[in-house]
Amino acid sequence: MLGSTHGTLTTDSRRARVIACGEQPAPAVHGRPAATDDLDVSGRPLYAGVPDLDRFFRPESVAVVGASDAEGRPNTGITRQLLAWAGRVGARLHPVHPTRESVFGLTCVPSVAELPEQVDLAVLLVSDPLPVIEQLAETKVRFAVAFASGFAETGTVGAAAQARLADAVQRSAIRSGLRLLGPNTNLNAFERFRDDLTGPAIALITQSGHQGRPVFTLQELGIRVSHWAPTGNEADLESADFISYFSEQPEVGAIACYVEGLKDGRSFLLAADRAARRGVPVVAVKVGRTETGARTAASHTGKLTGADAVVDAAMRQYGVVRVDGLDELQDTAALMARARPPSADGVAVYSISGGTGAHFSDLATAAGLRLPPLSAAKQAELHEWIPDYLDVSNPVDNGGHPVGDWRGRKIIDAILADPAVGVLICPITGPFPPMSDRLAQDLVDAAEQTDKLVCVVWGSPVGTEPAYRDTLLGSSRVATFRTFANCITAVRAHLEHARFTASYRSPFDEAPRTPSPSFRKAQALMRPGSRLSEHAAKQLLRAYGIRVPREQLVTSAAASVRAAGLVGYPVVMKASGARLAHKTELGLVKIGLTSASQVRDAYRELTDIARYEDVSLDGVLVCQMVEPGVEMVVGVTHDDLFGPTVTVGLGGVLVEVLQDSAVRVPPFGEDQARSMLDELRGRALLDGVRGRPPADLDALVEVVLRVQRMALELDTELSELDINPLMVLPRGQGAIALDALATCR
Amino acid sequence: MLGSTHGTLTTDSRRARVIACGEQPAPAVHGRPAATDDLDVSGRPLYAGVPDLDRFFRPESVAVVGASDAEGRPNTGITRQLLAWAGRVGARLHPVHPTRESVFGLTCVPSVAELPEQVDLAVLLVSDPLPVIEQLAETKVRFAVAFASGFAETGTVGAAAQARLADAVQRSAIRSGLRLLGPNTNLNAFERFRDDLTGPAIALITQSGHQGRPVFTLQELGIRVSHWAPTGNEADLESADFISYFSEQPEVGAIACYVEGLKDGRSFLLAADRAARRGVPVVAVKVGRTETGARTAASHTGKLTGADAVVDAAMRQYGVVRVDGLDELQDTAALMARARPPSADGVAVYSISGGTGAHFSDLATAAGLRLPPLSAAKQAELHEWIPDYLDVSNPVDNGGHPVGDWRGRKIIDAILADPAVGVLICPITGPFPPMSDRLAQDLVDAAEQTDKLVCVVWGSPVGTEPAYRDTLLGSSRVATFRTFANCITAVRAHLEHARFTASYRSPFDEAPRTPSPSFRKAQALMRPGSRLSEHAAKQLLRAYGIRVPREQLVTSAAASVRAAGLVGYPVVMKASGARLAHKTELGLVKIGLTSASQVRDAYRELTDIARYEDVSLDGVLVCQMVEPGVEMVVGVTHDDLFGPTVTVGLGGVLVEVLQDSAVRVPPFGEDQARSMLDELRGRALLDGVRGRPPADLDALVEVVLRVQRMALELDTELSELDINPLMVLPRGQGAIALDALATCR
Repeated sequence: MLGSTHGTLTTDSRRARVIACGEQPAPAVHGRPAATDDLDVSGRPLYAGVPDLDRFFRPESVAVVGASDAEGRPNTGITRQLLAWAGRVGARLHPVHPTRESVFGLTCVPSVAELPEQVDLAVLLVSDPLPVIEQLAETKVRFAVAFASGFAETGTVGAAAQARLADAVQRSAIRSGLRLLGPNTNLNAFERFRDDLTGPAIALITQSGHQGRPVFTLQELGIRVSHWAPTGNEADLESADFISYFSEQPEVGAIACYVEGLKDGRSFLLAADRAARRGVPVVAVKVGRTETGARTAASHTGKLTGADAVVDAAMRQYGVVRVDGLDELQDTAALMARARPPSADGVAVYSISGGTGAHFSDLATAAGLRLPPLSAAKQAELHEWIPDYLDVSNPVDNGGHPVGDWRGRKIIDAILADPAVGVLICPITGPFPPMSDRLAQDLVDAAEQTDKLVCVVWGSPVGTEPAYRDTLLGSSRVATFRTFANCITAVRAHLEHARFTASYRSPFDEAPRTPSPSFRKAQALMRPGSRLSEHAAKQLLRAYGIRVPREQLVTSAAASVRAAGLVGYPVVMKASGARLAHKTELGLVKIGLTSASQVRDAYRELTDIARYEDVSLDGVLVCQMVEPGVEMVVGVTHDDLFGPTVTVGLGGVLVEVLQDSAVRVPPFGEDQARSMLDELRGRALLDGVRGRPPADLDALVEVVLRVQRMALELDTELSELDINPLMVLPRGQGAIALDALATCR
Repeated sequence: MLGSTHGTLTTDSRRARVIACGEQPAPAVHGRPAATDDLDVSGRPLYAGVPDLDRFFRPESVAVVGASDAEGRPNTGITRQLLAWAGRVGARLHPVHPTRESVFGLTCVPSVAELPEQVDLAVLLVSDPLPVIEQLAETKVRFAVAFASGFAETGTVGAAAQARLADAVQRSAIRSGLRLLGPNTNLNAFERFRDDLTGPAIALITQSGHQGRPVFTLQELGIRVSHWAPTGNEADLESADFISYFSEQPEVGAIACYVEGLKDGRSFLLAADRAARRGVPVVAVKVGRTETGARTAASHTGKLTGADAVVDAAMRQYGVVRVDGLDELQDTAALMARARPPSADGVAVYSISGGTGAHFSDLATAAGLRLPPLSAAKQAELHEWIPDYLDVSNPVDNGGHPVGDWRGRKIIDAILADPAVGVLICPITGPFPPMSDRLAQDLVDAAEQTDKLVCVVWGSPVGTEPAYRDTLLGSSRVATFRTFANCITAVRAHLEHARFTASYRSPFDEAPRTPSPSFRKAQALMRPGSRLSEHAAKQLLRAYGIRVPREQLVTSAAASVRAAGLVGYPVVMKASGARLAHKTELGLVKIGLTSASQVRDAYRELTDIARYEDVSLDGVLVCQMVEPGVEMVVGVTHDDLFGPTVTVGLGGVLVEVLQDSAVRVPPFGEDQARSMLDELRGRALLDGVRGRPPADLDALVEVVLRVQRMALELDTELSELDINPLMVLPRGQGAIALDALATCR
């Protein structure tokens, strides 16, 4: 019951292509129906419907297959909990059992075929749910939940059983629209949700019951939780389905997720896109920062965790807030669910101790929050109530005493009235009732009168004080934290998400659906299962409109001299061959050749070295010598979850050591291509240092976008591409790919 | 009262030189007395005594100057609290007031001169403590505490008043050994400390009462706190004095500090050194990560925060654990105070949920904790009680049910018995009483039977559950946390501190006391107030045994050709002048000159450019051309708190952009010089990449140590030194300073 292990049959995202292109009609969904032409050029869907889960969470009638009231049977406890839940949500419950007459006084039917009415939801407590699935389709049951374990989480035999189950559900879905939650899930969806709490709620999605408990328990602190989806092994319904559904529910203010692995990369992106379009924050813990974490999670769930940098980038592209701790998940989701859109991104820090203000401001500024200095007029106003020798520029230090009387509320209101201030944060590190009780009440009262965000950090270790437990937690308008760090994390996420939402444009609207004219040219160059020679790889780039140096491939010394004449002196000469990497280290590159005799000698030397090193060449490249610029690397790699990804980094040996690069998951627009450059630690090199001219950023961005196009169009043909270096010339002069490595599938 | 503002007259650490070299005898201290020859070559002390603060914290008699029992007077409340405290510690209290007969029934004397006995401690509640200080010296009072504010924290006028107070204390100290805490301090030292708690305690030092409250309040969670020193403006006694004193108290297990600014860098280092020698952990929040934080703290305290990277390095050199949040300070200090030395650094993670284990392991591994896989035999043993399909390799996932019965304790004991395991961590993210209550009790019981560290993370948001509040917090052997992050931070700090302590050698034992023979040569090169020419700067390096290229300074074309012949072709030629920076950008460097005519031409061109650019030269350098290696930067800068600091970084334009460098505060040994290199992100470059040979690390370390020597010896002469680049050649071939910039004071 406590976070039992579970597993999923993970697929690459091209599973979607199979479903969407195949003969099977898509399952019924809300809104625009999935159509076979809603695919991008790589065959991945550009649209995903929202499963109608209303009757899952609020069914009118429920069948419990395997219900029991026999003493000591595990199913008896579960049946009892389901009965209580059905009572709360007003659902009729029908026990199903082959031999019992009744369960807990309710009439029992021997099979789902004999249910007295069409039910919305069947809870399967049987150890093998497979045979029941077919019967459920006959009886038009909408949803099934399978608790049974022993599937993909246990290894290959279980994975095969899960595949059979998934197939059965898919067949049933075609006949009746049946959807399955599980197997290997639990009672979390049927917990007791407090209905006395109002306002925007958190909806919760977890792949471990135990790990979801802290967010669920926020209800005890007065924070509303509306749903909990324990997705289990995700044989059918997956986390993405719940993200989509929750983002359309009016009561949901934020979606909190605990994720160990994703079933399908594209489904996740489409769900996150839906949430982003609607401005609904998604906050997620995603396990897999380290090899250990990824391995342990994989052995726990049977899911792939994906390359962490790629998951991280994908989340950022769609505004998903990634946090590391469950406490951060709690605090960030609670704030984002309940906070209104900020009127300004300025943060004012207000404290009863100069030390606390200094400390909080230090950490907040280090985290990137902006603390605008208050105006001289505002400071003068504050000094009506605060002694002159105290600093009230922001942080505002009141010295303590003014909060104990009528001045306290005036100070808070004056700060909140400042148009530069969108957020007021009051850290109280040690409660001192004569001051902190009144301060807490004043903050709660002031928060009722403003649309601005009011936050309190209550830093005592105890947490049983009335000012904390009753006054602050009793307010739905004050966001209360226990640590500086979590307050700062949550406020930053809120402000960044507001900025993100304001400028969000879905990349799926503009993603390419049909191949470009480049595609046919490129296809002709592919050599399945091989690495292309440098020359062929450059032709591939040229096909996609990426500049490469003038060059000719030659196979004799005489031809090399003729080629040099055509290319223009000085020239670079390089050995060219399909299996050739590390040319420089092997001495297979000659630069700055200025005469026919140098070219002739170079040809002989290169072929001699190749013979000596026993590498086979398809010839020697005679290339135009390009002026120096900023050396970059642009590449494509294949991610198990998301398919092709595009990377850009700083080139050169130093940066290779420092691994300064940024990655994005297609489809993405120019804005994301530009933001990749901002992520580079060595970004300043592109802007020009030590008097060097700024590099041609537009040309670099254009190369990244063309590489993305290539990655999508050649998804099934190209497994890896590495342009290294891409020489980015000064502004207005373009970018030229000096070398490239391409591997075909 | 709540963290009132306070301030200190901050001085560079050479204040110490003045005191130590001056005529005044040092105040009485424990242990080896301070002697004037206990100075390093820069004039900073190599030894600091420990003030005997026993009678401060446990006085036999106390005078309260300005005591009151009049209704509504602030001093009345303070007097009442002091009375209660005196009762608890068994001290006789004598009120002092010029006009009152008695206060709270105690006989009052009109002045300290008329006290009925010699008192240990005088608490000064008067607004101007200055006149009282002199009287206290007459009456041989050992300690005074001044609560009055209005000193350095309020600006320059207050700072001058504080200087007068400090002078008076210093004069009194000579006569009677009087020491002063404050001004601008508070009652924190006289709080109610629980005496029912046993075991190692936390001693607390703070520069803000409000900020110290959370650590003090740990007593309510069962964690012993033995002392609290609110150091205020530190006109006399400073944080370092308390660190030294606390590190010698047997009941103190760890020292927790909240620091905004340091009074003196060297005092802090000597105190941290004392704690390091004794293996007493010091955990500190130090404000000043950002400009905003530094500025706010400075305006709050009047103290300098110091360059943050330097403070950070200084703390690490002496094993001080720096944390950012007060919650981290609480959790880390509590663990380090109470945990025994680890028997192994392997961490075992044990959970009732596979998800929790995966998540915790992910974060722990990312933070650098080592989770050794359990042996096959150990896993087989665990599978006696845990189902076979669950992973017990580490993390150990028990699936939940075994903790509810007799198996639970067996599993815990089996893990603890593994010699590779020094720490057992059990994260419980959601309490489920049938399991978690018994699990908590089993962990507490098991912890009583082992020397190993047992940690629990209790992740529920509520914290009022009996298993948490009574069972876990009731144990002094289990370290209980509320978040994964704080548990990981504290355990890592504990293990790292144990490693640090085991290998610690005080750098003060080997610090140079007398100038080296290099010093006289170097002094002759100094040009006060000027920047040295490249040639002179290199002579300075040569004086300290640092290799520079063969080179000659010439002032004619003919001389340059003669010089090239002596230096040996090929040569490099550079314009040389005192104010010359950015030579390369100005075209004032010519490399790879191979003939007399090239040298002659280069001389003319360089002098032409210099004329055109209007820079005055002292000549042209004809230098040996050095083979390529790894370009590094080694430098000296002056820090306001710590004096000279030594920096090493990767050179070249790229790394200039990435600012990849490490800093240390002298004195430090070879181990620290080597560890600087490990801090560099581009460290791999030194080990050789892309087939390049590894660089001569020994030579690089030797240069760093020689630069340190120079920085100490020339402390009053040299304000800045920058060797850029230092060419580090392949192993065995040394390192050569190709260019250097030196600025004299």
